[in-house]
This record gives sequence, structure tokens and C-alpha cells, in this order.
Amino acid sequence: MHIAITGAAGFLGQRLVARLLSRGTLAGQAIRRLTLIDMVEPPVVAADGVEVTRLAMDITEPGRLDPVLATKPDVIYHLAAVVSAAAEADLALGMRVNFDATRVLLEGCHAHGLAGTRLVMASSVAAYGGELPEVVDDMTALQPQNSYGAQKAMSELLINDYSRRGLVDGRVLRLPTIIIRPGRPNAAASSFASSILREPLNGEAAVCPVPSDLSMFVMSPQKVVEALIHGAELAGDALGSFRAFMLPGITVSVAEMLETLRQVAGDEALALVRHEPDPRISAIVSAWPSRFTTRRALELGFRGDGDLREIVDAYLKAEA
Amino acid sequence: MHIAITGAAGFLGQRLVARLLSRGTLAGQAIRRLTLIDMVEPPVVAADGVEVTRLAMDITEPGRLDPVLATKPDVIYHLAAVVSAAAEADLALGMRVNFDATRVLLEGCHAHGLAGTRLVMASSVAAYGGELPEVVDDMTALQPQNSYGAQKAMSELLINDYSRRGLVDGRVLRLPTIIIRPGRPNAAASSFASSILREPLNGEAAVCPVPSDLSMFVMSPQKVVEALIHGAELAGDALGSFRAFMLPGITVSVAEMLETLRQVAGDEALALVRHEPDPRISAIVSAWPSRFTTRRALELGFRGDGDLREIVDAYLKAEA
Repeated sequence: MHIAITGAAGFLGQRLVARLLSRGTLAGQAIRRLTLIDMVEPPVVAADGVEVTRLAMDITEPGRLDPVLATKPDVIYHLAAVVSAAAEADLALGMRVNFDATRVLLEGCHAHGLAGTRLVMASSVAAYGGELPEVVDDMTALQPQNSYGAQKAMSELLINDYSRRGLVDGRVLRLPTIIIRPGRPNAAASSFASSILREPLNGEAAVCPVPSDLSMFVMSPQKVVEALIHGAELAGDALGSFRAFMLPGITVSVAEMLETLRQVAGDEALALVRHEPDPRISAIVSAWPSRFTTRRALELGFRGDGDLREIVDAYLKAEA
Repeated sequence: MHIAITGAAGFLGQRLVARLLSRGTLAGQAIRRLTLIDMVEPPVVAADGVEVTRLAMDITEPGRLDPVLATKPDVIYHLAAVVSAAAEADLALGMRVNFDATRVLLEGCHAHGLAGTRLVMASSVAAYGGELPEVVDDMTALQPQNSYGAQKAMSELLINDYSRRGLVDGRVLRLPTIIIRPGRPNAAASSFASSILREPLNGEAAVCPVPSDLSMFVMSPQKVVEALIHGAELAGDALGSFRAFMLPGITVSVAEMLETLRQVAGDEALALVRHEPDPRISAIVSAWPSRFTTRRALELGFRGDGDLREIVDAYLKAEA
């Protein structure tokens, strides 16, 4: 089993690599080889009996991935992306990384005859928007109100078309907003959703740029990584007529997040959250739906978190 | 009022040009200039007081449209496309014409500061597919089961994103299957839907490649051209949060089409239709939905045909 991962130096990429190495197998086969790709060289990982190659490259350049594709990976995780606020700030950059890189990858898989390769891409709740129904389901239109979501939705269509044509075996997981990300805030419009829990839990101040009654659809990093594993293990013909679907997150309001913070870490922690409305962030995030029925994902065996408290506890356990 | 049209030598393009010239105005302004663009030089049109430029060019090449965009057209109709069966047969060609050309056009509009230019693109019922509800509405997902539909859906997302960012004033009309096209069969998977009426009405034989119980969502060329006119006349802010929607076609079965043929032209005409199933055509066309509620289009003032008999009568009147 040879697995290639783009965006391998990123938050999800690194966690996925660690999880794959701790499992040792994917889809019932021993992992023999990992090819880790990012703009910067992915960090060294300890991996007994696994041949690990770490590559720094710009995968948006046609042909750059050829040497990797020539080795015929069994599974490709395509996690490389420019996050939402960054893609909104720079249309050309977002198109290149969030769409062109996907296209180059698909064309490369086609050129190298990788029809059986399982290509797992991460898409996003940000692909939804517009005049949405109260509860979004698997047949609700993607009418994104941000460039990141538009680029992800376009990539979904292309992966589905290549899969339908039998040129690759694609599957696209639409990720809920991930909380609690470890580390520092990033340029994702949803970055605050981790910050307002993570920083106070660590005794630091945080800014909440959105109203407390805003609801979000969220999933823990642990469950997202499990979904990425499961996404590669599914048989292609189980996936039906469209290769992209929403993962089973849970719906939480900012007020619930703050109340859970208070329950776990007290009034002192809660007082570390300063409310400072940011219309730019609010505009992007409030366009994302927060209530879903995720029938396809559940039928396919994907599982989410139980509740918000579980997510906070998992963070404290993982980062302690 | 300066109007540029890609695909101007095509079936819809030529009819749109004729209609624009017979009206003399668009959005309340006198038409002073028409720029007609296609792979081959569009035919000469008689146009008193209108400066007509006819250009043969490959608009998929970046930069080729620059001289046109530099003249700052007020309205651009983007009708250039590779039809469904042809796009299915040649993925690279379909991507280049159905998607890359749209992207190049949008990037050109941005580069030339055409924020106020109304860009009207034709999309298609072929963009729908998958596990559709009984009746499709404005918030039903596009899960195309053919490359043409996927390319159109991607173009829709890009036009919407450019419009949302204020870089162009786009609007995308999803066209029902157009019947009755004049002329000869083409490489569209839906070509038979015109053939089985047109050929017998002209005393010629036709082949029906699909089962009689297949239903389609259809619109006459006359109503499609009126919709293209109306689509350019709408104010951008009337269009809401997504710039693409389905036009109000009518639902007809192949059996109804054949019965209407019999009513209009007799058993003799009906006998000219030979039933010869083609699984390739059936697979594409049966994936397209045939029942819609088109609330957005109706609210915006778009109007369809009354019934199938009206469509046949309009054909006989126009082509007599």
C-alpha cells in the first residue's frame, strides 16, 4: 500500500500521517510507502518499515507531480488548499491552489493510468450558501458565497466527472468546521471557532468576531482524520452517482461553545473572550449552513462527535 | 449599446442576432454595435445603422478576446460550447471550450474592468443528474452525469463567484432541451428530440433512440431567444445570491411528441419514425430531470411555451 498526501505539512495532513503510521494498514493492506508533499518539506516522521519520501513542490505546476504519479500510489489524499479568508483575499491564488491543483492532479492520474487509485479530497461546508432550506441534505444545491467554496465545488464536479468516466476512483468529503484546531489562529474565516475555546483553555485571550447566536456545523480533528481513513477504505461502487457529500458534524452555537468553555474552565476562562464584531468574517461564516441531515455519509459508515463537550475533552486529552 | 456574442454562428447565436436586430434595442438602449465571434466567421447580417464586426477566433486561447474586451461591450452573450455527446466523446475538448473559454472570458472581463458588463451564459438541463427528487427546484444540487453538464456547472460557479465579487455582472440561464431545432441532427445527445418531429414534418425519416415513456423538459427556440433577451435586461441586483437558474420549460414525453406529430401531420408522418434504441444516448438523456418548479425564473419574468402543440406550430410558422 503506497499512499501519497498533498498538503502533508498542514494541520490535517500531519495528523493523518500520524494516524496512518499508528494503524500500519489501510483498506486491509500494510502501508509500505508514504509520499508526503507540500510547499515546504513535510516534517520527518518516525516510521518503522515504511518508506517515507518528503517532497517540497508547487503542485499547481503541470508535470511537477509526474514522478510521484509514475510510482502509482494506491491512495492519494489531496489536502493541499488555500483557506477561505486567504482565497477571498486573492482570487488568482485560490483558483490556482484550490482548483488548478486538483485539475492537474486529475489529468496526471489520467495520463498515468491510475484508474484504480483512490483519490480522497477534502471539500468544505463553505461550498454551501445562498437561499438554503432550514435543514440542508445531500441533494441541496451548492451556491457558495465565497471563492474558497466555489473553488472546492468546482473541484468536486471535476473529481466526480473523472470518477464517472473511470479515470480515477475519487471521493470527496465535505468537512464541517473543524474545532478545536491546535496551534495558532490561521487565515480561515472559521479560525475563531477554535480560538475562542483553545486560547482560554490555555489561559490566553481570544477574540470572537461573530454574534453569539451564530450556529456552526462542527467536527473534531480526531473524527475528521477517522473520516479520511474511512473515505479511502470504501469501495468506489458504494458511493453512488455523486462522489461528494457532507460529513456528519454536529450543530453548535457560539453561545453553546462559550457555555461549554465556562463549564470546563470557569468564568475566568470565559472572561478571556473579547467580543469584537468583524463584518468580513461574519459575512463569510454566516453564509455557511449549520443544520444538516447527512444520510449518505451515515449510510456509508462515517461517524461524527457525540456532543461539544466530547470535542473539548478530546482536545484536552490530545494536547495535554 | 454594444453587444458581443460568442458562438454567434451557431443555431441560437444566429437567431439571437436576428432578434436583436429586429428589436433594435436592448435594455432600453439602441443597439449601435454587434461583435459576432465564432470558430468560423459568422454569416453576414443586414443591419441598418448597426456596426457589425464578424470575427473567427479560438476564444479558448488566453488573450485572443482582448481586442474585443478592450472595446468594453455592454452585454456579452457567451453561447460558444461543445455539445453534450461531443463533450462526452472528448474530455479535453469539452473542458477547453465549455470551461476554459468561460474562465478566460471572466479573467478578461476582470482585466479590462468590465464590472458593469452583463455576461449572459447558456447552461443546460444536462447539469442536473444523480439521485434527483421527483420535482427539481431552484435549490436542487447539480450532480451531472455527463461531462458537458459538469463543465457547465463549473462555469456557473465561476460566473457566480466573479459576479459576487463585483468583477462582472453575470447571469446564467439553464436551458431546457430545445425543440424544434431547424436544420440537421447534431452531436447533442438530445438531437433526436428535434429530429423525431422535424424530419417527419418535412416528409423525411427519423430515428428515435430512446423509449417512448422518456420525459424531457423542453422549450422552443423562440422562447429561448426571448429568455436570452430578458436575461440581459434584468438588473443584476434582482438576481439574488446565485446567478444561475433553470428556465421554465414544459414537461413532455416522447410518446406525447409522437402523438402531437400524428395529430399535426397524420399517421404517414408518424410512420417515418423508426425506433432504434441507442444505450449511449439513452444513458445521457435519461439522467436529465424532466419535472421542475422554476420559481426563480418565473419571479424574474421569464416565460415558457404554453404546450407542445404551440411549439410545433411555432416551428411550422417559422420554417414555412
